[in-house]
Amino acid sequence: MEFTASQIASFIDGKIIGDETALITGVSPIENGESGHLSFIAQDRFSHYLDTSKCSVIIVSENLVAKDTYNPTLIAVKDAYLSFQVLMNLYQEMQGRKQGIEDGSSIHETAIISDNVYVGAFTYVSEKAKIGEGTQIYPQVYIGKGVKIGKNCKIDSGARIYDYCIIGDNCVIHSNTVIGGDGFGFQPTAEGFKKIPQLGNVIIEDDVEIGSNCSIDRATIGSTIIGKGTKIDNLIQIAHNVKIGQNNVIAAQAGIAGSTTIGDWNQIGGQVGVVGHIKIGNQVKIQAQSGVNSSVSDRETIYGSPAISYNDYLRSYVHFRNLPEVVKRINNLENNSKDKTNE
Amino acid sequence: MEFTASQIASFIDGKIIGDETALITGVSPIENGESGHLSFIAQDRFSHYLDTSKCSVIIVSENLVAKDTYNPTLIAVKDAYLSFQVLMNLYQEMQGRKQGIEDGSSIHETAIISDNVYVGAFTYVSEKAKIGEGTQIYPQVYIGKGVKIGKNCKIDSGARIYDYCIIGDNCVIHSNTVIGGDGFGFQPTAEGFKKIPQLGNVIIEDDVEIGSNCSIDRATIGSTIIGKGTKIDNLIQIAHNVKIGQNNVIAAQAGIAGSTTIGDWNQIGGQVGVVGHIKIGNQVKIQAQSGVNSSVSDRETIYGSPAISYNDYLRSYVHFRNLPEVVKRINNLENNSKDKTNE
Amino acid sequence: MEFTASQIASFIDGKIIGDETALITGVSPIENGESGHLSFIAQDRFSHYLDTSKCSVIIVSENLVAKDTYNPTLIAVKDAYLSFQVLMNLYQEMQGRKQGIEDGSSIHETAIISDNVYVGAFTYVSEKAKIGEGTQIYPQVYIGKGVKIGKNCKIDSGARIYDYCIIGDNCVIHSNTVIGGDGFGFQPTAEGFKKIPQLGNVIIEDDVEIGSNCSIDRATIGSTIIGKGTKIDNLIQIAHNVKIGQNNVIAAQAGIAGSTTIGDWNQIGGQVGVVGHIKIGNQVKIQAQSGVNSSVSDRETIYGSPAISYNDYLRSYVHFRNLPEVVKRINNLENNSKDKTNE
Repeated sequence: MEFTASQIASFIDGKIIGDETALITGVSPIENGESGHLSFIAQDRFSHYLDTSKCSVIIVSENLVAKDTYNPTLIAVKDAYLSFQVLMNLYQEMQGRKQGIEDGSSIHETAIISDNVYVGAFTYVSEKAKIGEGTQIYPQVYIGKGVKIGKNCKIDSGARIYDYCIIGDNCVIHSNTVIGGDGFGFQPTAEGFKKIPQLGNVIIEDDVEIGSNCSIDRATIGSTIIGKGTKIDNLIQIAHNVKIGQNNVIAAQAGIAGSTTIGDWNQIGGQVGVVGHIKIGNQVKIQAQSGVNSSVSDRETIYGSPAISYNDYLRSYVHFRNLPEVVKRINNLENNSKDKTNE
Repeated sequence: MEFTASQIASFIDGKIIGDETALITGVSPIENGESGHLSFIAQDRFSHYLDTSKCSVIIVSENLVAKDTYNPTLIAVKDAYLSFQVLMNLYQEMQGRKQGIEDGSSIHETAIISDNVYVGAFTYVSEKAKIGEGTQIYPQVYIGKGVKIGKNCKIDSGARIYDYCIIGDNCVIHSNTVIGGDGFGFQPTAEGFKKIPQLGNVIIEDDVEIGSNCSIDRATIGSTIIGKGTKIDNLIQIAHNVKIGQNNVIAAQAGIAGSTTIGDWNQIGGQVGVVGHIKIGNQVKIQAQSGVNSSVSDRETIYGSPAISYNDYLRSYVHFRNLPEVVKRINNLENNSKDKTNE
Repeated sequence: MEFTASQIASFIDGKIIGDETALITGVSPIENGESGHLSFIAQDRFSHYLDTSKCSVIIVSENLVAKDTYNPTLIAVKDAYLSFQVLMNLYQEMQGRKQGIEDGSSIHETAIISDNVYVGAFTYVSEKAKIGEGTQIYPQVYIGKGVKIGKNCKIDSGARIYDYCIIGDNCVIHSNTVIGGDGFGFQPTAEGFKKIPQLGNVIIEDDVEIGSNCSIDRATIGSTIIGKGTKIDNLIQIAHNVKIGQNNVIAAQAGIAGSTTIGDWNQIGGQVGVVGHIKIGNQVKIQAQSGVNSSVSDRETIYGSPAISYNDYLRSYVHFRNLPEVVKRINNLENNSKDKTNE
């Protein structure tokens, strides 16, 4: 990264206050500004950094500019937060996409690799797999038989995608995530547990992002489904036959047990557990660490293990914290009552 | 997959009702039947699908057949669920096992590879490791020094098995699971934590299945042990020196801390935590998300964090939910009592 | 491993009681001693094993020796536990470090590999990465662009370290851990969630050990930081922009949400969840499975979800378990009160 203040100002249509040749080579959060770095200030409570920051260039919301000169070069814009996002997106696009098949990858002769695809070294692509245009597959990835991956996806190093799974367009799968491992299905017998074959697959729709070290199991029959636009954090378990709708956000270390159905626009907190065979509606909020053991209607907010209404849980928890006092009050009442009886 | 109704009927000794040349190329769950697919109906509550399903062939329990002709071809058997399982197992066996050493694997000259073994590309087998007959090791697996793997195992892509660990016959280890990483052992000193060498190993007995992204740590000295027939789901932590008996089922994201001993035929729910140095008996059920901090006797069912008897937890939780009401009742009693005192 | 009793005695300056030529080829925990193995006894409650153990050689604290002869050969020292640790460390050092670049690794021509480095097969080192002296990188590791790794580190098989992350000296990163994956940052819009570029990095200071299957996300801008001497167990989530200080111990399956700051010498239990944007002080103890949703002062011990003072939680939990009885007492009081009113 190496830009002048005037280059940056031109990207975001900003007004320079100070040295337009100031050079930046990196980006800092405003609390830890470094010389030669760019940062931004969009809120009044950070505006004292305009005077004290070591950053060389700061993008600032124009209403926060109070003087004619500052130590750093400022770039004044309407909304510094938005302009900074625009800039970061631009920067990421400038990095370009990787392209080409690296030496040392293993691609089956029947696999179909579209144009402008990147396949890194030590990646293994099995028979009849199909990789869509512009998709980047980093080193050391495993792609099973008949897998279909759409356009413009990014599959990070060490991801594993098992036979016949389907991934849409514009998806990101982070490192060491496993898609299409066998579901956890066993028949109990007197001698032990007998494996139930897991013959379905996983379908991941367009615009899904899945973090690192997740396990998304294949269906017993049919498909485990992750709907369009859903974003899944790290270390998450999605069991066999789960169906997740569109635009959900699921935080790290949550787990969804088998055959549960989840609607659209839900927010599921970190370390939440959801039992199998239930239905979560739409726009539901599940607080972190909750244990959900029954179906949930649209727009509910829930908390606790087992999870109940968020407000009810908090109200009960206040009394839980106060239980020693509550019991003391009962003791007093009993003593009073006895006193009275003895009167 | 491509079978006619008559081929399927012959595998499971069923009676065809309809077109015996009907062709199936896949399998659907009955709720989402597709044309050209096979499904099954074993319960009365699904029998309306006999008339409405798009499936081409349906295996059905004979007592559910009420008419002479149906739209799909039916295959009537005594127990449709069992017959379907038989069929799925048959189908999986037909897929065959992979065999042979793929180009691009790295196998130490002192390693012993038995007959009919598959070793995928980019798999690394260290010195003096031994791989038993018929075992399949997928691409990108790491096998450490002196590791012993039994017969007919399947080790999925990206699994890591560290030095001197031992795996029995007929085991399945899924992708990105790490067996024999160092236990978490540090000596506190004034300057910081000093690593305690972890010199033991992990022993996995016959017929064990371990899901993806699990961490099974090696013992400090001696062995961490997973007993015969035990099934472990995804994202599970088994700490150093844990001993797990036979035929346990452990659900996703559970964690067992160091040196704990677990008997046989236990069921451990998802996201359960078990502290170190305790003893879980046999046939114990631990509900999901429980935190077990003391030893548990045979046949108990427990819940909560810290975990107590399942029924006691549920009973107390009912009152927990009702605490605001309970406290209101105490307020009333106190007011009444004051009123009386004032009388 | 093959040593005589006299060799071992010389390493730890011990006094032999018995056959000084006794040969050991392995190490057992004292509860499961094996012939030909070494063990140790440092506590009186284990001293009956001096007579019954099958071990060939036992290191024993001198105050526990009560007779002139025992079946196994004894090596008497002041503190058997410490001497055993010394011995195990010595043994591990004897194993030596791996060295050299294995065939089949892929190292970019602009990467800098220092002296005495090991790079295993199928490991991928990207452009301008720098690997310090004596560092061992096992097979199948991914090292991104511009990554800097210090001296004498060990990076286990399947670890992934993304672009521009920095790792200090003497660090251990276990298998399949992902360092520098994108933080989980999305802008909600009416059409769905828009990715916020994650352009920062991860900085891991000296003497840090990170277990297997962990996810340590890169900062949005700036750095996610793991401080000197901190030890992190398996399956742990550290979100973007988290700052962790020195000499912390974090147990398996814990998760720390974005932008939270953690001081020094804290102990964080297994499966703990910490919300984002809060501050944990120093020498704090967080009990396993706790959910921390507000800042915590130095030296507190906390428990519960949401977490409160450890003692308060336990006191309240005693009453929680007793709630059915508590409610019965209220019923009685109400009945008495009614009786009185009716009198």
